[in-house]
Amino acid sequence: MQLRELAEKLNCRLVGDGEIEVCHLAPLHEACEGDVAFVVNTRDLSKLEASKASAVIVHEGSPPCSKPALLTNDPYLAFVGALRLFYTPDGPTPGIHPSSIVHEGVRLAEDIVIGALSVVEADVTIGRGSVVGAQVYIGKGSRIGADCRLYPQVMIREGAEIGDRVIIHSGTVIGSDGFGYLRDGRGVRIKVPQVGRVIIEDDVEIGANVTIDRATIGATRIKRGTKIDNLVQIAHNVVVGADTVIAALSGIAGSVTIGDRVTLAGQVGIIDHVEIGDDVTVGAQAGVAKSLPSGSVVLGSPAVPHLAFKRSIAAVSRLPSILNTLKRIEMRLASLERTIEEGDIEAQSSQSTSERRLH
Amino acid sequence: MQLRELAEKLNCRLVGDGEIEVCHLAPLHEACEGDVAFVVNTRDLSKLEASKASAVIVHEGSPPCSKPALLTNDPYLAFVGALRLFYTPDGPTPGIHPSSIVHEGVRLAEDIVIGALSVVEADVTIGRGSVVGAQVYIGKGSRIGADCRLYPQVMIREGAEIGDRVIIHSGTVIGSDGFGYLRDGRGVRIKVPQVGRVIIEDDVEIGANVTIDRATIGATRIKRGTKIDNLVQIAHNVVVGADTVIAALSGIAGSVTIGDRVTLAGQVGIIDHVEIGDDVTVGAQAGVAKSLPSGSVVLGSPAVPHLAFKRSIAAVSRLPSILNTLKRIEMRLASLERTIEEGDIEAQSSQSTSERRLH
Amino acid sequence: MQLRELAEKLNCRLVGDGEIEVCHLAPLHEACEGDVAFVVNTRDLSKLEASKASAVIVHEGSPPCSKPALLTNDPYLAFVGALRLFYTPDGPTPGIHPSSIVHEGVRLAEDIVIGALSVVEADVTIGRGSVVGAQVYIGKGSRIGADCRLYPQVMIREGAEIGDRVIIHSGTVIGSDGFGYLRDGRGVRIKVPQVGRVIIEDDVEIGANVTIDRATIGATRIKRGTKIDNLVQIAHNVVVGADTVIAALSGIAGSVTIGDRVTLAGQVGIIDHVEIGDDVTVGAQAGVAKSLPSGSVVLGSPAVPHLAFKRSIAAVSRLPSILNTLKRIEMRLASLERTIEEGDIEAQSSQSTSERRLH
Repeated sequence: MQLRELAEKLNCRLVGDGEIEVCHLAPLHEACEGDVAFVVNTRDLSKLEASKASAVIVHEGSPPCSKPALLTNDPYLAFVGALRLFYTPDGPTPGIHPSSIVHEGVRLAEDIVIGALSVVEADVTIGRGSVVGAQVYIGKGSRIGADCRLYPQVMIREGAEIGDRVIIHSGTVIGSDGFGYLRDGRGVRIKVPQVGRVIIEDDVEIGANVTIDRATIGATRIKRGTKIDNLVQIAHNVVVGADTVIAALSGIAGSVTIGDRVTLAGQVGIIDHVEIGDDVTVGAQAGVAKSLPSGSVVLGSPAVPHLAFKRSIAAVSRLPSILNTLKRIEMRLASLERTIEEGDIEAQSSQSTSERRLH
Repeated sequence: MQLRELAEKLNCRLVGDGEIEVCHLAPLHEACEGDVAFVVNTRDLSKLEASKASAVIVHEGSPPCSKPALLTNDPYLAFVGALRLFYTPDGPTPGIHPSSIVHEGVRLAEDIVIGALSVVEADVTIGRGSVVGAQVYIGKGSRIGADCRLYPQVMIREGAEIGDRVIIHSGTVIGSDGFGYLRDGRGVRIKVPQVGRVIIEDDVEIGANVTIDRATIGATRIKRGTKIDNLVQIAHNVVVGADTVIAALSGIAGSVTIGDRVTLAGQVGIIDHVEIGDDVTVGAQAGVAKSLPSGSVVLGSPAVPHLAFKRSIAAVSRLPSILNTLKRIEMRLASLERTIEEGDIEAQSSQSTSERRLH
Repeated sequence: MQLRELAEKLNCRLVGDGEIEVCHLAPLHEACEGDVAFVVNTRDLSKLEASKASAVIVHEGSPPCSKPALLTNDPYLAFVGALRLFYTPDGPTPGIHPSSIVHEGVRLAEDIVIGALSVVEADVTIGRGSVVGAQVYIGKGSRIGADCRLYPQVMIREGAEIGDRVIIHSGTVIGSDGFGYLRDGRGVRIKVPQVGRVIIEDDVEIGANVTIDRATIGATRIKRGTKIDNLVQIAHNVVVGADTVIAALSGIAGSVTIGDRVTLAGQVGIIDHVEIGDDVTVGAQAGVAKSLPSGSVVLGSPAVPHLAFKRSIAAVSRLPSILNTLKRIEMRLASLERTIEEGDIEAQSSQSTSERRLH
């Protein structure tokens, strides 16, 4: 594609030679001839000259550079647009691979894809345009909506409901049993049957090796548009709101309710049965031990409001100096007490303060 | 089923109309007509009137409610009993699915189930009543006891020993190599062969996407009745005692020994080679860096006794006020020192304390 | 094997009866007759007498023991050598299992192994001596080097590059999409296409249920000799240096660069876009929120230099006593202030200090 054509399609202002041919996108430091690089942070502008990129997408108002440039108010948006132009994913081979085991009584839209060696149990429904990868398992009675993408080795247990345009990455387990036991008189744990299900609403994306447990009764539910990173644990009866983001290695215990537009950073833990409001942000590695009102921003384990956390961290880092201050205060106090006990005020007062502190 | 009949089977006291028909269990907020809800926490009693449940299981001694009720001293136990009455799991299709690859020399009880596209290597033994799901892998020489349940996509490496009534959820890997290396003179890591195995005793349940490494030599062992949640890591040569509970995303490093009836909350880490006694409780996100005697209750990273942790947390939250107090003390001290140096006691003493503190 | 022969092969000094037959290695407490045990920690020497081991590998210079012994300056190295002598892994059945689905246009070395029910997509290359387990998925155009080992149920997405002698354990997902979204004006997240790839260099070992995301553009890269434990998350565009070690349940966010010979202990988190130098050590459960120069040793969340962390921890544990000290200081101060206000110095000075403190 000519750079001029790319500029038009991305709605960018072209500066420099528009006749050059470009065919790939690449990070600044990996770019070769024919590649378009992009600069989001102005601090990276300095690396531009050393890059072999043929052209660059930069912020409107950036200092002039020696390479042909596409200027825009949102370089990242233009970059994503260019990704969509340059890389059209391979259409998978249509149809159901003959090595897959598809049980009777399934309702499959005509244009779906099922890869090799997958298992689709009885009474499963799969909507139009959905692509099921190789070696996937879909349990009895589960419903998969339209235009979904299940990558190889996804596992969905019986009775799950998956909306439209849902993406699930490899190794993820949907609908495993919740972790529920009843202790009998001797302390032995009796398994509580987990007979609920999992509901994943439209436009949710779930990363690799995630686990989402089915509800004991009722449903574990992930609402519309929420994005879940790799290796996240969602326990039974959890409800995650819409447009929420959960980063890798976070764990949400049973019966937690999370609101809309919440952000959980990586390795966050949330104790069971709490309620997290809307628009809450939980910092990385925080441990939430009680309910949080909408709009909260918390950090730490146990999690506290982020300003309190920062004050505590700052204060803790000053602790060694606090200990020193305390020692000095006690010495000064002892000195004063001695002075007063001895009634020897006039004599003392003739000494300098600094001398006294050295005692 | 009539409510009267349910009351009898669950050994509950019926209050209200026993003739109504009930057919499902549901959480209070999801219940429809025909559903039985249950209330464990008395704070949830207020939600009962708004619920559409036809009847409710409540604690004996709860305030009277407008719906037919089953009263019992243990509503959760009655709820679990009702689960067992209402939901009998589908018996899986008996027999070995013809698409599975079962090697010669296996010893399989007559009534076992092996789902589609599973692989059972040579010299495997599977006891009566066990159900192996689809796409499972069982490595050479492994032994699976009676009445076990392996969900789809479980992976068991060679030489594992699994007891009776063991449940393993999807995506879990049993017997992967331990993480052991020897550094040569140049700092390059040489792999230590991991030739031990994994032993899982009776009545253990293991969640989804768990990893349990084989021992270097000897065995990694999970003892009778222990329950392990999703995404837990158990390293080589770990021994976990009986009736212990390990919550999601916890990691136990190599050669750790854990006692009986221990509880590890979520995201706990335990450093290698330590010994955790019996009846220990480790709080969520705690990091155990040394051995713990039986009965310990610890929190924090590094973990300390829970009372010490709570005192520290409380003290840290008071740090900003401590800093203020220190400042005030230093000012008062300086003022006293000045007073005494100046020998000007009588003049000072005529001022009020509060005035002086404001300086 | 006779003990004498073992001593020669391991280059150890034999003390005691060299004619005895030994055939296994075992930990001290599990060893039976015919087993060789080994003692690395001298504190374990006391357990030697109670052990049923027939012989023992001990450190040159250890106190004499009653069993035949192999003495060496590096017992662990001798133990690993003995492991290699005693346990030769089963050669897997050579060839490609007929149940596997191998697409046209693959380039497979002659002597490779592909287990049952695996899927190898188009344009895949696999080098000589590599063993691909059962139920593995290898995506279109991926290249696997020589002498690699992919355990059952590994999943490799399209376009990955795997070097020579790489080991990947079960359940691990290589090349899942990076976690990248663009928010439109209404806060809805638009998926950023993830069109980069994953490069794993020679001699890397990757544990079970690990996730390594493909790059947005360019490559996520794991350099030569690095070892990754189970359940680790490596996000898009991360670069991990050579000979680095990453313990279980650690998570590395997008675009992080990690140097050579770095150690990340378990459950470590690293925030996106930071740079970790060479020879850095990050302690267990630490949370790295900024770049770290080479040679750093950090602990805590947020991570700080380990000495500062230890000082802080020590100081925090002293906080309750600091609060007491503060209270005492304030009482002494108030007492002094009262004394001076009252001008009553001579009367006070006749009381003992200890009495005054008790008020």
